[in-house]
Amino acid sequence: MKYTVYLSGEIHTEWREKIKNAISANNLPIEILTPNTDHSSSDECGVDLLGAEENPFWKDHKAAKINSIRHMTALGRADIVVVRFGDKYKQWNAAFDAGIATALGKSLIIEHSKELTHPLKEIDAAAMATAENTGQVIELLKYLCRDY
Amino acid sequence: MKYTVYLSGEIHTEWREKIKNAISANNLPIEILTPNTDHSSSDECGVDLLGAEENPFWKDHKAAKINSIRHMTALGRADIVVVRFGDKYKQWNAAFDAGIATALGKSLIIEHSKELTHPLKEIDAAAMATAENTGQVIELLKYLCRDY
Amino acid sequence: MKYTVYLSGEIHTEWREKIKNAISANNLPIEILTPNTDHSSSDECGVDLLGAEENPFWKDHKAAKINSIRHMTALGRADIVVVRFGDKYKQWNAAFDAGIATALGKSLIIEHSKELTHPLKEIDAAAMATAENTGQVIELLKYLCRDY
Amino acid sequence: MKYTVYLSGEIHTEWREKIKNAISANNLPIEILTPNTDHSSSDECGVDLLGAEENPFWKDHKAAKINSIRHMTALGRADIVVVRFGDKYKQWNAAFDAGIATALGKSLIIEHSKELTHPLKEIDAAAMATAENTGQVIELLKYLCRDY
Amino acid sequence: MKYTVYLSGEIHTEWREKIKNAISANNLPIEILTPNTDHSSSDECGVDLLGAEENPFWKDHKAAKINSIRHMTALGRADIVVVRFGDKYKQWNAAFDAGIATALGKSLIIEHSKELTHPLKEIDAAAMATAENTGQVIELLKYLCRDY
Amino acid sequence: MKYTVYLSGEIHTEWREKIKNAISANNLPIEILTPNTDHSSSDECGVDLLGAEENPFWKDHKAAKINSIRHMTALGRADIVVVRFGDKYKQWNAAFDAGIATALGKSLIIEHSKELTHPLKEIDAAAMATAENTGQVIELLKYLCRDY
Amino acid sequence: MKYTVYLSGEIHTEWREKIKNAISANNLPIEILTPNTDHSSSDECGVDLLGAEENPFWKDHKAAKINSIRHMTALGRADIVVVRFGDKYKQWNAAFDAGIATALGKSLIIEHSKELTHPLKEIDAAAMATAENTGQVIELLKYLCRDY
Amino acid sequence: MKYTVYLSGEIHTEWREKIKNAISANNLPIEILTPNTDHSSSDECGVDLLGAEENPFWKDHKAAKINSIRHMTALGRADIVVVRFGDKYKQWNAAFDAGIATALGKSLIIEHSKELTHPLKEIDAAAMATAENTGQVIELLKYLCRDY
Repeated sequence: MKYTVYLSGEIHTEWREKIKNAISANNLPIEILTPNTDHSSSDECGVDLLGAEENPFWKDHKAAKINSIRHMTALGRADIVVVRFGDKYKQWNAAFDAGIATALGKSLIIEHSKELTHPLKEIDAAAMATAENTGQVIELLKYLCRDY
Repeated sequence: MKYTVYLSGEIHTEWREKIKNAISANNLPIEILTPNTDHSSSDECGVDLLGAEENPFWKDHKAAKINSIRHMTALGRADIVVVRFGDKYKQWNAAFDAGIATALGKSLIIEHSKELTHPLKEIDAAAMATAENTGQVIELLKYLCRDY
Repeated sequence: MKYTVYLSGEIHTEWREKIKNAISANNLPIEILTPNTDHSSSDECGVDLLGAEENPFWKDHKAAKINSIRHMTALGRADIVVVRFGDKYKQWNAAFDAGIATALGKSLIIEHSKELTHPLKEIDAAAMATAENTGQVIELLKYLCRDY
Repeated sequence: MKYTVYLSGEIHTEWREKIKNAISANNLPIEILTPNTDHSSSDECGVDLLGAEENPFWKDHKAAKINSIRHMTALGRADIVVVRFGDKYKQWNAAFDAGIATALGKSLIIEHSKELTHPLKEIDAAAMATAENTGQVIELLKYLCRDY
Repeated sequence: MKYTVYLSGEIHTEWREKIKNAISANNLPIEILTPNTDHSSSDECGVDLLGAEENPFWKDHKAAKINSIRHMTALGRADIVVVRFGDKYKQWNAAFDAGIATALGKSLIIEHSKELTHPLKEIDAAAMATAENTGQVIELLKYLCRDY
Repeated sequence: MKYTVYLSGEIHTEWREKIKNAISANNLPIEILTPNTDHSSSDECGVDLLGAEENPFWKDHKAAKINSIRHMTALGRADIVVVRFGDKYKQWNAAFDAGIATALGKSLIIEHSKELTHPLKEIDAAAMATAENTGQVIELLKYLCRDY
Repeated sequence: MKYTVYLSGEIHTEWREKIKNAISANNLPIEILTPNTDHSSSDECGVDLLGAEENPFWKDHKAAKINSIRHMTALGRADIVVVRFGDKYKQWNAAFDAGIATALGKSLIIEHSKELTHPLKEIDAAAMATAENTGQVIELLKYLCRDY
Repeated sequence: MKYTVYLSGEIHTEWREKIKNAISANNLPIEILTPNTDHSSSDECGVDLLGAEENPFWKDHKAAKINSIRHMTALGRADIVVVRFGDKYKQWNAAFDAGIATALGKSLIIEHSKELTHPLKEIDAAAMATAENTGQVIELLKYLCRDY
C-alpha cells in the first residue's frame, strides 16, 4: 500500500536522508514531502524575495508566511506526518505542525528521545506511534507498506 | 459582540486571572474557557483516575489523553484562542494547541515577549494578533467586543 | 466547564443511572443524552410505528433506521461519547457508535472490564480514556468539569 | 466505472482472495486496499517495532495505533468499504471500521450470514447492501463497474 | 430528547398543522421550522420585493432564490427533515430538499402513499423512515422524544 | 481545462450519447460518469444480486441502495453535475441528485424544456446554467474546456 | 423564523441604522452583527493596541488582522450576510467578505445601485438576492421572518 | 515539490504569460489553471450559449454563473491562488475570488502595486505573500518548488 509522507520537524540532522535512502533501498511506494531544510534560505526568503525589512519581527513574519505555503500544502496532501524533535532549539514550529496534522485527521508519527517524554506528552497522546529513533520510523514505514 | 475565548498556554503565572478580572471589571460579553491550570492534578490525573503505571511514558500518556478531552472541546467551542508563551519550559503543548486552532479556523491571538519572536515566527504568522503582554490582550478583547 | 455527553453502549445494567445520579449529586454542568434503553420498544418500533413485516431482516431494518435518528442526532450534539461494553451479547452497535464518534472528532471514553482488552484494542486506541468501571467514568467527568 | 474498495473485517478466511481473483478474472477497474491480514504481525507490531511492554493493555495499544495508520488511510481513500462479519470472535474492530466509514460518507457493503441479522441491524441499516456471502459481494462489484 | 425539525414538501394540505397540534398536545420538546406555506407570496416574492420581470423564468428565479435563504437556513439548523409528497404537482423542490438534507447528514423522514413507492425509491433509500401518513410521522416524533 | 462530469437525470432518450459523441469529436478533456442507464437491470439489481423480495417496497429499496453506491461515488468525484429533466415520469431521483450536488458544492447544469420552468425553479436557482436542449449543454462544455 | 445577520460592506452611510430601526419597529427575531463601523479606530487599532509601525503596509496589516477576528467570527455565526456596495472607494474588503460568505455556504444578499451591475456580476451571481436599496433589504428580511 | 496554481485577477495585461513562460523556462512542476481571459467571450457567453436577454442584469448574470463553473472548479483544485490587482477597473471579482480561496483554506499570493496597500489591507492580511510585481511572484514559485 502506498502513502504520501510529510517529514516535518528539525532540520539540523540527516534524519530525512536516512528515511529517503531506506525508501529507495527497499523500494517502498512512498512519496516524501519536506519543508525547506536549508536553514539560511528558509530564514531569508521573505526579505530576499519580497524586499528588505528593518524590523526583525516583519522579516521573520514574511519568511514564515511564505514557508507556510509549502507546509500547508504538504500537510494537506500527506497521509502520514512524521515530526522529529531534536535536543536543541525551541522547535515550536514542529509542535505547531503536529497540531495542524492532528486537526486535519492525518496519522501522526513522532520521533524523540526518552528524555523529552514529559514535555511532549500532549503530542504523543495524539500520535499513532512514538519512535525513539529514525530506524524505528523506517521500520514502521516498511511495515505499513506491506501488501497482503 | 460576544465571544467564547479559550486561554491556552503556560499555567505558571496569573495571566488568566488578569484577563478574567478585566472581563468582569469591563463587563465584557466573553465566556472564558481554560485548561486545567493546576499543574499537579493535570500531571497525575491519569494514574489518579484510571490506575497506576510503572512506565512514566504511559503515566504521561493517560494524563495527556484525559486532558485532551477538555482541550479539544474548548478549542472546538471557541471563537478566539489566546496562547501565551512564557520564558520557561518547552511549552510544546501550547504550540500544539495553536496548530489545532489554526487548522480549525479559529482566530489566534499569541502573547510572548520580543525575545521569542524568531522561534515563534511560524505561529505568529498564523495568528491574527501578536501581543507582548497580557495588557495588550485585554485591550484587544475590549476592542473586539465593542458594539456599533 | 460544561459538556454534552452521550451514553452509548449496553442497555442491560444500570450504569447510566449511576452516572445521572452522580451528576445530580455533584451538581455537574453536564447534559446527558441516551439511546432508547427500553429493549422491547427499541426492537419493535419499526413494526409498531410503521407497519408489520414478515421478514425479520426488514423488521430489524426499520427499527434500526428509526433509532439511528436519535443516535446520529446525539452523536452529532455530544462533546463526549461514553461507550460501555458489557460481558454479554455481540454489542456491535456499541462499536459502530464508537467508530462514528471517532470519525466525527468526538472525545471517546470507553468502559470495559480487563478481560475485553484484546478484542477492544482498536477502539481503546481511538479513545481518550479507558475505564474499568462506571465509578472511574464518573471520576473522569467530575475532573473534566472542574473550574479553574 | 472504477472504484477504490477497502476490504475490512475478519481475517481468518480467504474471502479477500476470492474478491481479488474475481477482479482479476473479470478485469474490473477496482483498486483493492486491505488491513494487515497476517494476524501475528498485526498483534505484535507494537512491541516488535517500538519496544517491549509488560502490560498487555499497552502492548495491544501500541499495535492498534500503528495499524490504525493503515486503516484510517484506507478508509479515507476508499469509495466503497466492504466489511465481512464471520461466525467467530468479537469482531468489534470490524464494527468500528463500519462506523468510521459511515461517518465519512463512504458506501458500505456488509457481508454476514443470516444468523447475525439481529445483532448487526444497526450496521446493516447504514449499509448500501447486505450480502450473505462473498459471491454476492463479487456480483455487486461487477454490477457497479459496468460501463454505459 | 429535544429536536429541531424542518417540515419540507407539499403545501396544499394541512399536514403541518396536524404535526404542530400533536407537538402542542403532547408537549414535545420540538422546534418546528417551515418553508413559506403561502403559495401566492412564495411565487410572487421576487417581483414583489425586488421589482417586476417580463420573462417568467426570471420572475421564478428571483422568487426561488429568495426562498432558498429560508430553506437553506432551516435545512442547516434541523436535526430531522420531514418531506411529504402529495399526489399532485411535480414536487421537484421536495425531492431537491431531500437531496440537500441527505448530503448534509440530516435524518430524513419521508411521508407518501404506497402508490408513490417506485418513483420515490431513491429518496426512501436515503431516509431513516418512510411513513404512509401524517399520523405515523407524529408517532415517530413522539417515540424519538421519549426520555430514558 | 479538464473536468469530471456526471450525467444524471432521465435515461429514456439518447442525450448522454450526444454528449459523449461531442466530447469525442471535439477531443474535450472530460471524463464522463453516468448512472446505470439500463432501466431493467437498474430496477432488478436488488433482487437479482441479493435475493427475492415479496414486498415491492423492499425490492425497490434494495435496488435503490445498491445504485446509490454508484451515484454517490460519481457525485463526490464530479466537478460538474448535469441533470436532464424530460417530459415524462416523476423524475424525483433527478431532483434528489441535484440536491445532493448542490449541498456538496458541485457546479450544476440543468437541462429542461421551457414548459418545466415553474416546477423546476428551485433547482434552476441553484444551478450555474439552465439549458433548453442538449446542444446547449455541449456548447457549455466546449466553452468551459477552452485553454487560455 | 429567527436569523443571525451580518451587515458587511460600506461604513460611510447610515444603512445599518435603517435596518436596525426596522428590526426594532417590526419586532423581527433577528440578531445583527456588524464590523467595526468607526473608520478611525478600524484603521488605527493595530498601532493603537499593539505598538507603532513605520511602514504603512504593516500598520494596515496589523489593523486588518485584528479586525478579521471580528469579521471571521461574524461570518461564521451568520445565517445571512448582507453586503452593501456604495458608489465610492475600492470596497475590496466588501467583495472579499462576499467571497468568504459564499464559500462558507451562507445566504448572501447584495445591495448596490444599478450602475454597479456589470462589475458586481460575479458576486450577484452567487447571491440569493440583489437589492437596489436598503428599503428592499428590509422588506426581504421582513418576508423571511414570517411565521407560517 | 509540485503545485496546482490558479491565476485569478485582472485579464488586461500579460502577467499570466510571464508566469507560464517562467514555469516553462525553469521546468517548474506547476500546473496552471486560469479563468477565461478573453474579455469578450467572458462577457457574452451567457447570451451566446443560452439565448438573448433584454435586461443587462440577466445578461451579466447568465455569463457570471457559467464562468463560475470554471472558477469554482479551479479554486477547489488549486494549492495556491495568485490574485493580481491592476490599476484599473473595479476588480471586485478578484477580491471575491480571494475571499473564496481564503475560506477554502488555499494559500493566497496577492500581487499589487504599493499604491493599493490601504484598500487591499484585508486581503493582504489573509495572504501568505504580497508581491509588488509579477517577477516577485515568479521568484516565489521557483522558491516553493525547490526539492530538498
